[in-house]
Amino acid sequence: MKKKKAKAPFEGLRVLDLSRVLAGPYATMMLAEMGAEIIKIEMPVTGDDSRHFGPFINGKSGYFSSINRGKKSITLNLKKEEGLQVFRELLKTADIVVENYRPGTTKKLGIDFEALKKIKKDIIYAACSGFGHSGPLSTFPAYDMIVQAMGGIMSITGEAGGQPVRVGTSVGDITAALFTVNGISAALYHREKTGEGAFIDVAMLDSQVAILENAIVRYVTSGESPTPLGTRHPSITPFQGFTTKDSYIIIAAGNDRLWEALCRALKREELLDSDDYKTNDLRTENHDKLIPELEKTILSKTTQEWMDILSDAKVPSSPINDVSGVFANPQVKARNMLVSTRDSKGKDLPMAGNPVKMNILEDKSTRVPAPDLGENTEEILKSIGYDDKKIKTLKEHGVI
Amino acid sequence: MKKKKAKAPFEGLRVLDLSRVLAGPYATMMLAEMGAEIIKIEMPVTGDDSRHFGPFINGKSGYFSSINRGKKSITLNLKKEEGLQVFRELLKTADIVVENYRPGTTKKLGIDFEALKKIKKDIIYAACSGFGHSGPLSTFPAYDMIVQAMGGIMSITGEAGGQPVRVGTSVGDITAALFTVNGISAALYHREKTGEGAFIDVAMLDSQVAILENAIVRYVTSGESPTPLGTRHPSITPFQGFTTKDSYIIIAAGNDRLWEALCRALKREELLDSDDYKTNDLRTENHDKLIPELEKTILSKTTQEWMDILSDAKVPSSPINDVSGVFANPQVKARNMLVSTRDSKGKDLPMAGNPVKMNILEDKSTRVPAPDLGENTEEILKSIGYDDKKIKTLKEHGVI
Repeated sequence: MKKKKAKAPFEGLRVLDLSRVLAGPYATMMLAEMGAEIIKIEMPVTGDDSRHFGPFINGKSGYFSSINRGKKSITLNLKKEEGLQVFRELLKTADIVVENYRPGTTKKLGIDFEALKKIKKDIIYAACSGFGHSGPLSTFPAYDMIVQAMGGIMSITGEAGGQPVRVGTSVGDITAALFTVNGISAALYHREKTGEGAFIDVAMLDSQVAILENAIVRYVTSGESPTPLGTRHPSITPFQGFTTKDSYIIIAAGNDRLWEALCRALKREELLDSDDYKTNDLRTENHDKLIPELEKTILSKTTQEWMDILSDAKVPSSPINDVSGVFANPQVKARNMLVSTRDSKGKDLPMAGNPVKMNILEDKSTRVPAPDLGENTEEILKSIGYDDKKIKTLKEHGVI
Repeated sequence: MKKKKAKAPFEGLRVLDLSRVLAGPYATMMLAEMGAEIIKIEMPVTGDDSRHFGPFINGKSGYFSSINRGKKSITLNLKKEEGLQVFRELLKTADIVVENYRPGTTKKLGIDFEALKKIKKDIIYAACSGFGHSGPLSTFPAYDMIVQAMGGIMSITGEAGGQPVRVGTSVGDITAALFTVNGISAALYHREKTGEGAFIDVAMLDSQVAILENAIVRYVTSGESPTPLGTRHPSITPFQGFTTKDSYIIIAAGNDRLWEALCRALKREELLDSDDYKTNDLRTENHDKLIPELEKTILSKTTQEWMDILSDAKVPSSPINDVSGVFANPQVKARNMLVSTRDSKGKDLPMAGNPVKMNILEDKSTRVPAPDLGENTEEILKSIGYDDKKIKTLKEHGVI
């Protein structure tokens, strides 16, 4: 039942994107990467809050530019009836609506799922919020930092014995974005099968709980909450970061064979003879004694010197790359994981590429830049039948 | 074009799951949550490595049980021709194959995408690996810790001025799992539209780069790699963790209005008069002076006392919950984010629920337990026409 050849799996799908800042825009960025058309609906004059977040490049927010690449922008004031009218007409042409308002906001505006379903029977409506559309904290104010703290991940991240720290990237927003995309994609398949739309309700807090992984099992079995361990693995040794002559290195000797290879590579074969280190369990038990022994040796050479030695010995290891190290990494380059857009002054703006590599999706090394505020307003309005006169009126009324 | 009413979007889909440990099994767990049937194919006798990972509950790995709930298990030795024969017959009944072997392994076994396509034209084949199926590091050994180090996230996580630390949960595996599910779901939609299968190639390292978020922009604009900041936000102040009388609290005063509300709640109104703290930029610039002022006050009450005060003042704040705090959180409970299975001794094993809430997906509070090794071997073999005699022979030959 071959129908037509698409260049990307979501080609031909239209998304009305009411979302701002990070979680929602990251989700629609992934949909754009898969070929969907994203119509970003923004408040006239101000637009997405993140247009005003630094750092700025040629007067445009780099933060905004990297997450909103390849989207179209239309300004539309949804607090005015004329704005809602435009939205409803756009809706008839759309497959998906994405929003990350605080729960209740779209209901107040009259554009919640129940209202939209009456206009577009099979609409897929995805709401991505801090705490979700149910429960006592539903409308509690959410930031990534708040859900990282409340959801437990901070309590297991940090130096051993030290203070909890935030994961350096906004995993609260980003994992919620990925779960939202999962929901939307599943709903698209479901729509093909049944003709039905769907309401998707993803919360940042829920997403944090979902990625707690074996911290939950460890708590359930021991009754004790896990604590931060720096870079150390709770039950494999040696499996952690070490200070080298010039920076750090991660060494992951995950089994007895690798332990032996490591000792030989470090020229510390005498450790192999010690009864205290014969098995992984013993090494973990005697961690306090073993690690200083290894530290002493590892401090004597640079990270690169050790990387050469440990790669030859086939012991899993890695420098702790900072962002410049990520940019220089040959694997990152080979995988096209740093793409770029070109700004209006012809300067390239590098950004992370798409990690979902597929034979049914072209993976170019450039992306269409993020839109200026309202860049596509006229074009989009004309496509749904608005003429110059009507567009002028909307402008005069402050609707667009 | 309503065809039939499904209870879950992926109902009726069959997944052959060759994956082990975390990234692949987490991906197929999400597919199971969406209603797909997962046939976990494991080596006879040993099974998935993670069956042997602690902690154990009634002799079963808690780690394995939580990620493999709701799946079926068949033992099958794919290094024997008879095992491959069974696999090929199963393939004819399947929609999706998921594996997280090191690249090259399935080719060696004769079950790579190209080979499988000849048997099942529209198969969706998802490979989730450490470094991906291309590039110089493609077959380099990967652990979550290694890709966290190489991919940059560790370099921005930790205390300010301290050592980089690992994110306390395996975000290297889990984000790769989520991107893999995104790829599979998009491919399913594409298959409905075109009749085509797909090859999906997701790498853990790529996934780490994809979630670096604004660390990339900050590096690109300043030329300097971002460093760890503890819990502090790089450009919003005060927006970080504070020590209280009994533990910690996160306070996120994201704008001037919240700054004012915070000072009043802390009874430190005099700070509002200081010219050094009038705007967010000034507060960030004078961070070194401001934070100790706030610390002094916040240390005087417990986290719960401050939570009560700050909630009333509508200042976004949160305790830094450990896992026991997550279990006790009323929002987590209300969202059904802690579900459970029941083991053979009738004891409940709690685990994280599904964060993708949808009106087309029933969200029960219990899950079917993870299978014993080979628990469904006979049932599955019989469903593709194997009789008792043939099954006995396979057993004798060490194939199942």
